[in-house]
Parts: sequence; structure tokens; C-alpha cells
Amino acid sequence: MQSTATIIHARWIVPVEPDGAALENHSLVIHEGLILDLLPTRDAQQKYTSQHVLTLNEHALIPGLINAHTHAAMTLFRGLADDLPLMVWLNEHIWPAESTWVNNEFVFDGTQLAIAEMLRGGTTCFSDMYFFPDEAARAATLSGIRAAIGLIMIDFPTAWAANPDEYLNKGLALQDRYRNNPMISTVFAPHAPYTVSDEPLRKIQTYAEEIDIPIHIHLHETDDEIKGSLEHYQQRPMKRLDKLGLLSSRLLAVHMTHLEEHEIQRAADTGIHVIHCPESNLKLASGFCPVDKFLQAGVNVALGTDGAASNNDLDMMGEMRSAALLGKAVANDASAIPAATALRMATLNGARALGLDNVTGSLVKGKAADVVAIHLGEIESEPVYHPISQLVYATSRHQVSDVWVAGRHLLKERRLTTIDEQNVLEKTRQWRDKIAASDEKIINVR
Amino acid sequence: MQSTATIIHARWIVPVEPDGAALENHSLVIHEGLILDLLPTRDAQQKYTSQHVLTLNEHALIPGLINAHTHAAMTLFRGLADDLPLMVWLNEHIWPAESTWVNNEFVFDGTQLAIAEMLRGGTTCFSDMYFFPDEAARAATLSGIRAAIGLIMIDFPTAWAANPDEYLNKGLALQDRYRNNPMISTVFAPHAPYTVSDEPLRKIQTYAEEIDIPIHIHLHETDDEIKGSLEHYQQRPMKRLDKLGLLSSRLLAVHMTHLEEHEIQRAADTGIHVIHCPESNLKLASGFCPVDKFLQAGVNVALGTDGAASNNDLDMMGEMRSAALLGKAVANDASAIPAATALRMATLNGARALGLDNVTGSLVKGKAADVVAIHLGEIESEPVYHPISQLVYATSRHQVSDVWVAGRHLLKERRLTTIDEQNVLEKTRQWRDKIAASDEKIINVR
Repeated sequence: MQSTATIIHARWIVPVEPDGAALENHSLVIHEGLILDLLPTRDAQQKYTSQHVLTLNEHALIPGLINAHTHAAMTLFRGLADDLPLMVWLNEHIWPAESTWVNNEFVFDGTQLAIAEMLRGGTTCFSDMYFFPDEAARAATLSGIRAAIGLIMIDFPTAWAANPDEYLNKGLALQDRYRNNPMISTVFAPHAPYTVSDEPLRKIQTYAEEIDIPIHIHLHETDDEIKGSLEHYQQRPMKRLDKLGLLSSRLLAVHMTHLEEHEIQRAADTGIHVIHCPESNLKLASGFCPVDKFLQAGVNVALGTDGAASNNDLDMMGEMRSAALLGKAVANDASAIPAATALRMATLNGARALGLDNVTGSLVKGKAADVVAIHLGEIESEPVYHPISQLVYATSRHQVSDVWVAGRHLLKERRLTTIDEQNVLEKTRQWRDKIAASDEKIINVR
Repeated sequence: MQSTATIIHARWIVPVEPDGAALENHSLVIHEGLILDLLPTRDAQQKYTSQHVLTLNEHALIPGLINAHTHAAMTLFRGLADDLPLMVWLNEHIWPAESTWVNNEFVFDGTQLAIAEMLRGGTTCFSDMYFFPDEAARAATLSGIRAAIGLIMIDFPTAWAANPDEYLNKGLALQDRYRNNPMISTVFAPHAPYTVSDEPLRKIQTYAEEIDIPIHIHLHETDDEIKGSLEHYQQRPMKRLDKLGLLSSRLLAVHMTHLEEHEIQRAADTGIHVIHCPESNLKLASGFCPVDKFLQAGVNVALGTDGAASNNDLDMMGEMRSAALLGKAVANDASAIPAATALRMATLNGARALGLDNVTGSLVKGKAADVVAIHLGEIESEPVYHPISQLVYATSRHQVSDVWVAGRHLLKERRLTTIDEQNVLEKTRQWRDKIAASDEKIINVR
């Protein structure tokens, strides 16, 4: 009998690799933060011992969900200004609110709220794009969640940086500070083709190759973005990035709606990753991402929630379901984006996009123990014929009972172990009162 | 001080009438199953007394949700055969399973499971279409939920009836049995234009006028349905029903995708009600319902989940959110289907469609006390700027804490008071084992 850190006996384990497998009465053995073994429970009981044994007779274990695109701190703006056209929402509400409120404290508190929400919903890794990324990295580190922190770049000045060079330098300093941290990776995050000009994009491309990190950008989010690019650059945004040399397996292209067939093929040929945010695309009426076509062309498609200001939650279980449902309708084929594919998009594909698939994204020996237990024994999820169908189509994030990240038990029977929930709620309400009171325009939206 | 049955002091009350109102620190007073008063809490404390006083400082009260289209008993087939084309799903899985399993006991047990799920998710009234409607009515009555029971009609024989005349006679007998029951109404439910021929539709139309009850039918669900109708009847399904005299304010037309502009106008002119099932339409890739166009034309649009075999849940909170998100994308307008409209579709519009708007659908004095309390003080729903936005875009059915139907407290701090949950789960698992074991074809789908 080998002594180990934690053993979880589960009714089902869905490892995501191999695709579509749903193992019954299996056990996951965790040691030193890693997955030491995954085997039938009867074998595990003979081979391993531990002081921490969980028996989950009505649960499925899945790999931790990976939210491949969010703006975590914006959770403090959740529901501030809904049901508005994209540019009115941005110009008249979100950007003014950001210029008034965004500072170190806002980003730390907002990111902590976001992490609390994400961990409670089974997300163990998130890819962030926001100002004061040092504060997001600090909040992530304190909570124990895994994060890919975006090194934001935008042409105009903000409280975080005055000009492209300052954005770049602050980003590089952050990258250097975290380069040996196993839980925090860094990713260049130029905001979008319409907010970042050629010169900073070229510099980012050069540095990204030199220090070998990904680039994360909003791309083809709306028809207006494409029209604007044709007007200012006489080419579509994707073509412009192509000419600048940015289309490669290093690129995470977020949204990707309004595409021509040759662009889908070009995405496949260059190996870019598509980060699909179905609920944000629907809510902002941005357009439809042709997910099934991308998958058929061999493109890696991962999922993100986008920020809570445009979703309005950070619910990867819900996003996975929306991706499956919407993907079928857009493909006009009920067999498109089957449940196992949606689950892979929400886990392993996100890890691949972030260059973390050697570390996380599936329950495979040697990977980090980023694991989520989900209770399928509730009225809402019974009867269970096919656990993967049930996880994707009939299970809510409130059924997530336990979450481990790198073997640390961060959510234990629905209680967070590293974040003080009451404190987060109190700070959130203080921000709410300040933001609501100062902004008459926001209050008078309705 | 007037003594009353129940007083609920709430942080917010969203009565749905008037549209968009979110009353802060108000109280709802319930007496003899009805809403006696709705007034500011400071006034309620002086005017009313009760042995049952609830103070819900972090909750919103809303009218009970109305699921305007489902096949409740099919919850026992939840997740049996996913990710398949509509006709393969129906012909090779659902219809064979139905012909093997559907009987009195199946319908009672399945409907009870469905009711447990619906009550836990804030649904206080459902409109059902299935075989053995007497068993559905019995399960509803035992639970205390409000129901509009469909009197099913279909050309082919089933375990419930051998031919159209038997369907009709059994339906009329059921209607007669429940005609004075305040909680159960009846609705003719011819399955669809492609499964019910002209003669039974004419009879239904005649009887519906005579006994003054609605008619509930699947209409324009798929492009195939329309093509088939053009082939067999040389006209589109809606045109055929029009000629048969069925288009009137008595008709609930479920799905309504693939429409021409003149058909939207005809829907408005005839006063039919559209029952929109966004998640079923997405999952089966049926097509898109032009909800914004219907609303702009003045058509009453309500919401349904459809059956759990094609959704896969009976979650009206989720359906409301999906309707708002999808409605914006289909309209290509982020300001379409704002939150208050989605909430009205899920409540008052459903009551109107079912002819029950004098009884339920909004929190108005004199209506039945069909009320839902939802906890907005969780991490997932904070901060709260606009409670209606939060309810629609950032709240899950698991945050429903309490449900009253006609003043009866059917869900109390998330526990059902009239249904034995453990018993329902046990029966559900027994059905699951039987259905899965006997149907090798089903097991081998994956």
C-alpha cells in the first residue's frame, strides 16, 4: 500500500482524454499536487492508502474548467448597464465607469470576487485581460487558482499606463516577476485590432517570440469592427494581423464572428486558437462564431465567459451548455458539438490554447490535480443515462461540490477554503454603493 | 392590525405589473390563497399581523414562473439520446422508448419528477402535452402545483387511445372531471399539423369553441415540417390551420420558427399566442423564432422548456435567460428582449396564453399567491445594480429558496413540502435501470 495525499473514489470519472470516456466506479489518486493514478476503485483500495479519502457515490469527477477569456475585475460592474447596443454600452457606461473607478484596489477586489465565483463553479484556471494585471496575479496567487495573466496593451492612456511603451514595459516586468511561478503564466494581451495600432502589435509579436509566450486578442467580435478596419486599414482585421505576422499557434483569437470561408481555412493553416464566448456574443448581438466549421477545419476551439459586464456571469458550466446548444443551431445540425466535444472545449482545448496542456486540461497521470467533483444525484440531473450528456445538458454550477487546484482542496463541500466569502461580499457591496451613488447616469438607465 | 395567513417582507419585489417595476423594501400579504396586499414594509408592519412572517433581506419576490410548453413525463427520458438529428432522435429513440414504456405509472412517476424539478426552480404552473393526461393531472393535484393539462390528440394509436375519436372522448371526459377544479385547467392538445389530420382538427376547433378552452399545438417547429406540409397539403402548416379556422386568441402555437413576414402579421391579426422554446430549438437545430418581430407586431410571446428529452431540463430561469440572449442575437440588436420583457414572457405572458391571467402571472392584489423568492445575496449575483437584470442574467434556479402556489408553501428553504424527494429519486433510478437495461440500442448510441 502506497501512502498518498488524497484519494477520491467516484461514481464516474470523465478524464476528457480519451475523448468521450466515462469511467464508472474509478478512483483518482493525488500526490504532491499531481495525478498519481486513475484506476478502478477496487484496485485503488488495494494499492493506495491516504489520510484523505473521499467517497463520492453520486458524483462525477472532471478536469477543472478553463475559462479562456475573461476580464475578471469587471465582475464589480456586473449588471451595471444591460440591454444596450455594444458601442453605447462601451462608450457611455463601461469606459466612463472604468476611467472613474479602475485602480489597484478595484482590480484586486473585483478579481477576488471573480475567482470566488469561478472556483464555486468548477473553474480552476482563467485567462484574464485587464488593467493592473499585477493585482489580478496577486489575487490569483492568494486564492490558489491557476491563471494566465494578460499583459494588457491599448493605444490610449489609462490609470495603468500612459502609452504603448509603458504598457509594454510594465507587462514585461510582470512577466519577469512570475516567470518561475508554476501557477501564474503570462500572455500578451493587445486589446483589439481597432484599439492597438501596428507598431505596438509588431513589438508584441517580436517579444512574444523571444520570450515564448502566447498573444491574446479580441478579433472579429462585430461587423462594425470589420467595417472600421476596411475603412482605416483597407483590409479586414484578420488579414491585417496576418500581414503583421501574428497568425500562428501562439495566437488566441477571441470571438471570431463574421468570417469568410477562406478565413476559417487560414485560421486552420496558421494554427491559431479560437476562443469562443457564446453568451457574450448573443447578449451583445455581436454575431455567430462558426464553431462547427472551425472544428471540422481542425482549429482548436476553447471557451470563455468574457467579462461579467457582458454575460453576466463567469459560469463555465453554463457556457459549455450554451456552446453546445448554439453550435448546433448555427451549424443547422443537431449532431454538431456533441456533449463530449463541448466538455473538451471547456477543458483540454483551453489548456492547449494557453500552452498549458502539459500541465492541466485532462485527468491524466502526471498532470496537475486540477479536479472538479459534481453532484449528479439531484432531482435536476436524474435519471443519468450518459454522464457526459448529463454534465453538459442538465447540470448547473451549483452542483459543483468540491474543487482541487494542483491538489489543493480550494472548494470543500461548497465552502471556499482560501477566500473569505463574507469579506468578499462586504467589499463588493461597498463598491456597489460607491459606483451606483456617483453615477446618476447609470442609475437613470432604466 | 388585520390578521393574515402569511406576510413576506422582501428586499425587492418585482410584480411584473407594472412592467419593469422593482419595488425596494416592500411586503406581500397573502390571505386565503390570494394576494391581499403589496405595500412598503414600514406600512405593512403597521397594518397587518400574521403567525407566518418571513423577512427576506437579500431576496427578490417574483410571480411564479409559467412553463407554457412541456411534456412533463418525458423527464424520465432525460439524456437518453442526445446529439442526434431530430428525426433520428424521434424515430429511432424517443418513439420506440415511448411505445415500450409509456403507461399510467410511467406518466405519474415522470410527471412527479418533473413537478419536483419545476417547483425547485420557481415554476408554479405548467402547460403539459402528453399521453395519460389523467395521471399528469393527478400528480399535479397531489403536489399542489397549478397545471394546464393538454388533452392529447394524434392520428396514430398509442397505449392511451386507439384512434382520434377515443383521444377526443377521453380528453372530453377529463375536461369534464376537472371543470370545477381551481388548480387544473384543460387545453386541447393536437400534437402537430404533421401528425393530426383535418377531421380531428375540425372537431377540436368545434369543441374548443363550445366549451371555451384553448388549443395547444406544435407549429412550424422545423423546416422539414413545412416542406412536408407543402408536399401533402400544398400549403404551409400555418396556412392550413388558418383555413381550418384554428388561428385565434384561443391558439397556443409552440415553436414558430421559419416564418415569412406575412405569417408574423397574420399571427398578430388573429391574436394567436406564440410559445417560444429557445433551448429546444437550439438543441434540435430546429430554427430560430423571430421573437423581437413577434413582440413588435403585438403578438403575445410566452416561454416553455419543451420536454426534458430535448432540453434537457425544465429550468424556466435558464429558459428566460436563453430567450433574452438568443432574442438579441436573432434580432441583431443588443437592446431587444430586455430583462423585464424576458421576465414578463416567463410569467404574465404565459398566463395570458393559457387564459389564466385573471388568476396568476403577476403580483397584483386579488390574484392567486403564486410567488417565488430568489436569493440574490450570493457571490454569483453580486453586486446588484438592477434586480431585474440580475434575476434574468445572473441568477440560477438553485437560488430559488421558497415557492408558494395559491398561498401554499410548496418549497420551504429549498425543501419540497408536498413531494417526498427521496422517494422520487428512488423511483426515477428504478425507471432508469429498466429503460437502460432493456434497450441495447439506446446503450450503444455512444
